[in-house]
Amino acid sequence: MCRWLAYSGTPLLLDTILYKPAHSLIDQSLHSKLGVETTNGDGFGVGWYSPEHTDTPALLRDVGPAWNNRNLRELADHVSSPLFFAHIRASTGTAVQQTNCHPFRHGRWMWMHNGAIADFHRMRRDLVLLIDPLVFSDIEGTTDSEVMFYLAVTFGLEKDPPGAVARMVGLVERVGREHGVQFPLQMTVAVTDGERVWAFRYSSQGASRSLFYSSRVDTLRKLHPDMAFLRDVSDETRLIVSEPLGDLPGAWNEVPESCYGVVQPGADAMHTFTPEPM
Amino acid sequence: MCRWLAYSGTPLLLDTILYKPAHSLIDQSLHSKLGVETTNGDGFGVGWYSPEHTDTPALLRDVGPAWNNRNLRELADHVSSPLFFAHIRASTGTAVQQTNCHPFRHGRWMWMHNGAIADFHRMRRDLVLLIDPLVFSDIEGTTDSEVMFYLAVTFGLEKDPPGAVARMVGLVERVGREHGVQFPLQMTVAVTDGERVWAFRYSSQGASRSLFYSSRVDTLRKLHPDMAFLRDVSDETRLIVSEPLGDLPGAWNEVPESCYGVVQPGADAMHTFTPEPM
Amino acid sequence: MCRWLAYSGTPLLLDTILYKPAHSLIDQSLHSKLGVETTNGDGFGVGWYSPEHTDTPALLRDVGPAWNNRNLRELADHVSSPLFFAHIRASTGTAVQQTNCHPFRHGRWMWMHNGAIADFHRMRRDLVLLIDPLVFSDIEGTTDSEVMFYLAVTFGLEKDPPGAVARMVGLVERVGREHGVQFPLQMTVAVTDGERVWAFRYSSQGASRSLFYSSRVDTLRKLHPDMAFLRDVSDETRLIVSEPLGDLPGAWNEVPESCYGVVQPGADAMHTFTPEPM
Amino acid sequence: MCRWLAYSGTPLLLDTILYKPAHSLIDQSLHSKLGVETTNGDGFGVGWYSPEHTDTPALLRDVGPAWNNRNLRELADHVSSPLFFAHIRASTGTAVQQTNCHPFRHGRWMWMHNGAIADFHRMRRDLVLLIDPLVFSDIEGTTDSEVMFYLAVTFGLEKDPPGAVARMVGLVERVGREHGVQFPLQMTVAVTDGERVWAFRYSSQGASRSLFYSSRVDTLRKLHPDMAFLRDVSDETRLIVSEPLGDLPGAWNEVPESCYGVVQPGADAMHTFTPEPM
Repeated sequence: MCRWLAYSGTPLLLDTILYKPAHSLIDQSLHSKLGVETTNGDGFGVGWYSPEHTDTPALLRDVGPAWNNRNLRELADHVSSPLFFAHIRASTGTAVQQTNCHPFRHGRWMWMHNGAIADFHRMRRDLVLLIDPLVFSDIEGTTDSEVMFYLAVTFGLEKDPPGAVARMVGLVERVGREHGVQFPLQMTVAVTDGERVWAFRYSSQGASRSLFYSSRVDTLRKLHPDMAFLRDVSDETRLIVSEPLGDLPGAWNEVPESCYGVVQPGADAMHTFTPEPM
Repeated sequence: MCRWLAYSGTPLLLDTILYKPAHSLIDQSLHSKLGVETTNGDGFGVGWYSPEHTDTPALLRDVGPAWNNRNLRELADHVSSPLFFAHIRASTGTAVQQTNCHPFRHGRWMWMHNGAIADFHRMRRDLVLLIDPLVFSDIEGTTDSEVMFYLAVTFGLEKDPPGAVARMVGLVERVGREHGVQFPLQMTVAVTDGERVWAFRYSSQGASRSLFYSSRVDTLRKLHPDMAFLRDVSDETRLIVSEPLGDLPGAWNEVPESCYGVVQPGADAMHTFTPEPM
Repeated sequence: MCRWLAYSGTPLLLDTILYKPAHSLIDQSLHSKLGVETTNGDGFGVGWYSPEHTDTPALLRDVGPAWNNRNLRELADHVSSPLFFAHIRASTGTAVQQTNCHPFRHGRWMWMHNGAIADFHRMRRDLVLLIDPLVFSDIEGTTDSEVMFYLAVTFGLEKDPPGAVARMVGLVERVGREHGVQFPLQMTVAVTDGERVWAFRYSSQGASRSLFYSSRVDTLRKLHPDMAFLRDVSDETRLIVSEPLGDLPGAWNEVPESCYGVVQPGADAMHTFTPEPM
Repeated sequence: MCRWLAYSGTPLLLDTILYKPAHSLIDQSLHSKLGVETTNGDGFGVGWYSPEHTDTPALLRDVGPAWNNRNLRELADHVSSPLFFAHIRASTGTAVQQTNCHPFRHGRWMWMHNGAIADFHRMRRDLVLLIDPLVFSDIEGTTDSEVMFYLAVTFGLEKDPPGAVARMVGLVERVGREHGVQFPLQMTVAVTDGERVWAFRYSSQGASRSLFYSSRVDTLRKLHPDMAFLRDVSDETRLIVSEPLGDLPGAWNEVPESCYGVVQPGADAMHTFTPEPM
């Protein structure tokens, strides 16, 4: 399993979010509290959009742990972004290699995942065969997460993200059950096109991995008028995280089971998530 | 493209073959003379059988260049083996990662390859679909070479190596031509079960990458009675290499176009290789 | 801080000691119970003597975590040794690089360390200046552990290991106190020449990191007559470990504070350790 | 030996300079024409100043070859900078590790080097002892290049770069000659504080490695009125390179033997370089 975070809002130095908080993602790489594993040291990735070059996000991914990676530390100290993903990996068996590190990218889209397809080893062939042949050869790694991404691409991610994810999940559940797997999927997923972020929390069993979103900044400012940090970011600023980055009262809200949130210009939204039978 | 060597014979410290020769494989990683690229620095691998643990070969593979790898240097200085493969990689585009480094292993079998499937990116899906579903999920990397290996496994490598390779080649050529590729395959391949080594030289175009085998040791001893090295190895000892390791007169013989050799207990053999239409 | 083990006895596949035990060193890399950190993921190293090539030990060291390293897994499955060291690192700030991974080697000697020189950053220059100029340029990394090793070499490690270590400790304590450091040194150290192993437990504060040695195999056999493993190893076989590899009653004994043990042909020995003022 | 380039001028995407030119630095990592080695695959580094965070430059350094590094490719595609250094390394024996990759950094200063101190292994101790104790512990690697940098820092680099470098060279030559080395130093060096770039070409033997600077952009525009690229960059834009990035007539000028250039706001300058006896 893994831990991840998605940031959208006022452009910030990555350091502000990745390293500074008390229970930052880097801290979680060593001491996750809510994850299946306490250690998430099997590679990491950061993907960010830069104001000048918005056609595709940039990726920094490497196979060692995030906590001791100097290039990540350098980037975090020198790069600002209005929208970025970060992910730390705990492999459930597949190889520790750059192409298995999240986020995955397709054009200007990014995808990251915490969870697993149960018995993926047995289902892998059936699932990859259902990926659009036009994108099949873009698969570079061997994770369930990347297969889920390309299935979602196959099912229209670029036009209708919630629908495409619902169809991907419906398919994985069908194929899983054909293989006799009772609860085929466990996932929290974030996906973005650089403008909006969709974050899904779902599992076949109805007992999904944790997922939280930050409260509205204007609300937080009233609760904590002394926190300088909150004065520097816009009301629109939002974080979605596998586990809270600290203990600030009122700051974190759980994404409900079988739901997805949309972070977007204007009011954000929360919806029920239902897999689409395929 | 890549460079490789296969050794079979008197157990030797790997160093004797990997580093000591004037134009050793390590030297070829920087200065290949006959390869498509002069530099082969996109990862390497060594696979060896040890006398005590013969059920599977051991693999050391890494993503950096062979020439500066300290773990390879350490192994070469301390490990002896009667049968080993070594490979240095020049990527033709696929990711530089451990799971794309040769040799590949399946049970007690090892496989390594120099060459390429032309337009592999376009053919990849069609080819992997033809791999036996029982071994499909053992594919860990993204190279044409590994797909060729699992196709050969699918077609009976463990029972009939030359036949399985002939069928694999026949298949690749058919699929390639269906995709409009005139010359789908270029290969020199070595495969072993720990007892025998089969080495193939073939290309659809009839213009295959170079491949050489060493002369019989007893013949070489007569030619070079002063070479101490030759007194220490058995008559059975044999090397197969992408390019000669030095200039010793009489030492190296080209494997003819569209042929394969078998290094085995008793007399070695050379046969014509013909793809089997699939 | 770190975790380590030293094995001496009947030649065994490294896997038997490194991976098989319930709380193996590999398990400790993720879940150390007695260490300062629970995670030891900042590189690892194994050094082993092979029966055929006994002039120097072989080293495999790498910068990623031990728990996901495939080359370590391969070696452990295929290499046997009568005497080996293994070490997993948790960096206290110095770079995560191969030359900072233990064990360190000088000729046929190996050294590994758990602990730290307090305020090493400030003392580093004064300490390295006291290293014998003839070995100064052999320093390749930036750890306190390596400096301790070369100081011990400087003070006669190859002739009198306990005396050399006592002088090294005396020196570090003097230099530390000159810099106003109350408790300059914390260490468990193992050192070997391939024949004997010396293991030291000491700290300036008298509160040293844990260190254990295994009971005599003949004693253990009487306690656990049903354990097949114990029938396969000689009476001489001995393990020294940062923390026990399991819960076998009667198997593990703490090395007393300020003591060192010697594992050697014939009866092993335990002595008091006293730094030598320098 | 190595290859490097320094860029100063109109903020550009790193890709424009690192990858796009016909004989780019990335191409030089495989096929250097003027270097001692054709292959420069023992690590690389890029250091850049970003407009927003100008207190220190950011560094991306890694141990593999530049030509296959995906993180470098990503950065080059997404990061712009008005002043950056890039370096590809061919180790002359010291370890291939991140802390041995150039550029080196001290506060807001960066340093990179091509060349070598002859017999550095023997002189290393004498030289490091002459480094200011206050910066001694900042040394993280084992290269001659980093020792040269900290000697220059010791001798006043931050106040008088040419003077500090002249004293560093004078010192290295004296210590070298004390060790019986006839020609102790070979160097092209670039150093910057983020505002100005100093580039030195010198060797004890008077036969220095190649070094070139680009012609004034306004001159080039007149020579090549059809080159769109030249219309996008300011007159002030300047490149200094180990070897030309292409064959554009009139574009490249050799830095004369024993000289240094200064790239700065206003007119750039070229001066004679003379070591200062120490």
